[in-house]
Amino acid sequence: MTDFALADWMMPRLAQVEQGLSDAIDPSAPADLGQAMRYAVLDGGKRLRPLLVFAAAQAVGEGAISTPAVWRAACAIEMIHAYSLVHDDMPCMDNDVLRRGKPTVHVQFGQAQALLAGDALQALAFEVITPPDGSVAPEVQAALTRLLSRAAGYQGMAGGQAIDLASVGLPLNEDQLRQMHRLKTGALLLCSVQMGAVCAGQPSAQVMESLQRYGQALGLAFQVVDDILDVTSDSATLGKTAGKDEAADKPTYVALMGLAAAQAYAKTLHEQAMLALQDTGLAPAHTSALRALADMVIHRNN
Amino acid sequence: MTDFALADWMMPRLAQVEQGLSDAIDPSAPADLGQAMRYAVLDGGKRLRPLLVFAAAQAVGEGAISTPAVWRAACAIEMIHAYSLVHDDMPCMDNDVLRRGKPTVHVQFGQAQALLAGDALQALAFEVITPPDGSVAPEVQAALTRLLSRAAGYQGMAGGQAIDLASVGLPLNEDQLRQMHRLKTGALLLCSVQMGAVCAGQPSAQVMESLQRYGQALGLAFQVVDDILDVTSDSATLGKTAGKDEAADKPTYVALMGLAAAQAYAKTLHEQAMLALQDTGLAPAHTSALRALADMVIHRNN
Repeated sequence: MTDFALADWMMPRLAQVEQGLSDAIDPSAPADLGQAMRYAVLDGGKRLRPLLVFAAAQAVGEGAISTPAVWRAACAIEMIHAYSLVHDDMPCMDNDVLRRGKPTVHVQFGQAQALLAGDALQALAFEVITPPDGSVAPEVQAALTRLLSRAAGYQGMAGGQAIDLASVGLPLNEDQLRQMHRLKTGALLLCSVQMGAVCAGQPSAQVMESLQRYGQALGLAFQVVDDILDVTSDSATLGKTAGKDEAADKPTYVALMGLAAAQAYAKTLHEQAMLALQDTGLAPAHTSALRALADMVIHRNN
Repeated sequence: MTDFALADWMMPRLAQVEQGLSDAIDPSAPADLGQAMRYAVLDGGKRLRPLLVFAAAQAVGEGAISTPAVWRAACAIEMIHAYSLVHDDMPCMDNDVLRRGKPTVHVQFGQAQALLAGDALQALAFEVITPPDGSVAPEVQAALTRLLSRAAGYQGMAGGQAIDLASVGLPLNEDQLRQMHRLKTGALLLCSVQMGAVCAGQPSAQVMESLQRYGQALGLAFQVVDDILDVTSDSATLGKTAGKDEAADKPTYVALMGLAAAQAYAKTLHEQAMLALQDTGLAPAHTSALRALADMVIHRNN
């Protein structure tokens, strides 16, 4: 643990993301679509991915954290995350009715509207990182789109979800499970770090490669902790249905290696993330937020 | 009609799009997701949107039609179109089982896979216009992403679909119907023209504004003809279920104004498109493909 005051650091960033998300979605948009999108993306979630964008930008470039590129990238990655949850909760996928302590989007607005809201949130993610006002350099707009589209797509998040669907009830080994999560949740978490770094200019290969290892370890740790919480927590604390993985016979780290080993594995991954940060060669003062976010991922209870 | 040989002009462009789409989707992608995506996007469709991209590029810039930006933009717009069809056909939306003469994606691969294939195709559209190889200038990558994300999103195609959903059984007037179609199908058709123009450099305001009027008239004409074909054609010719609009009590131009008036309206829109092309001030030899595509939209039988 560090003596970095994460809460103080987070507060203005979270406010900026909330404002950016709200400004991006006109509530009076046709046929309640704007309402469904706002319901899906506002007032909820840990905003871990946006915070990683801010933290990585701060680590790589002095003052980069205050540029329009950064809050825009932060909003974009959260829109992608939110859309994936909306679609993932639908009856033909996980069929979940509770998310962040509220009825899921399809329960609230109907399946067709949920489908469209998810689709529109994905498009909006690319819209928000390509402003026409000259506030973000074309090179940065192109690089952010490149990273985000690949992380969200069939060789990233969507591919991981397809593996997840196909693997229910199948005995995955640890390598297969890791590959699934590397895509399903890891790709976006890694992308958050990469997007933040790209907003701060042209990081060196050493910085980029080490930050990638940080993002990969963090992404995997996040998923291991998710699997742990699914068995150790309750629905009220989680804000979503607990015990769901086991009930659905989904492969998890806890099912694969047992609870204690999964907890030990999460700690190991946390250490790997910290070592990767050291390897960046960046000043420890600049990477405090990235360190604190890794702590948060490990110690979270929802 | 012109003496421009549209079929000869189309053939190499269609082959280029088919190749680009196929190359972009690895058939061995995880858990059959690549297969579902390829099924959705290959070997079917009129490819009207890609052809408009090529034609607009040719109109605006000498030699622009042969640049990587153009076939990439052409593939991207077709991916967005294909994803929208996959999602639109799902049971919670139009619940259609036949598309381009084949079982729809959810019938063939299941609903969950169809949902993911659509999601992944949208991401891939943005991936294909942001290549890392330096073949497309960052400014063009950013401009293409800007146009495409807005046309696909909640103030474009997705918004039009939401209005469509909300309007079943409601008595829309002509203005409301036009607004719905301006978003639902018009936004992508207009975007095709705009993307093609942007690939060819920085068109003048006169060119851009006139091309936009061309795209808007063409988009509306396309929809009016669609409504006409739904009552005058059969499922075998259409490659999708005929008579569907009337059965679903959907508002259409034919329902609103009658068949003869709808046919006259389509002709008027075609004339508007031709006048807009004249207003570009571009050499008629350069705009032949755009003229021929407008003819095709009016005279198509599926």
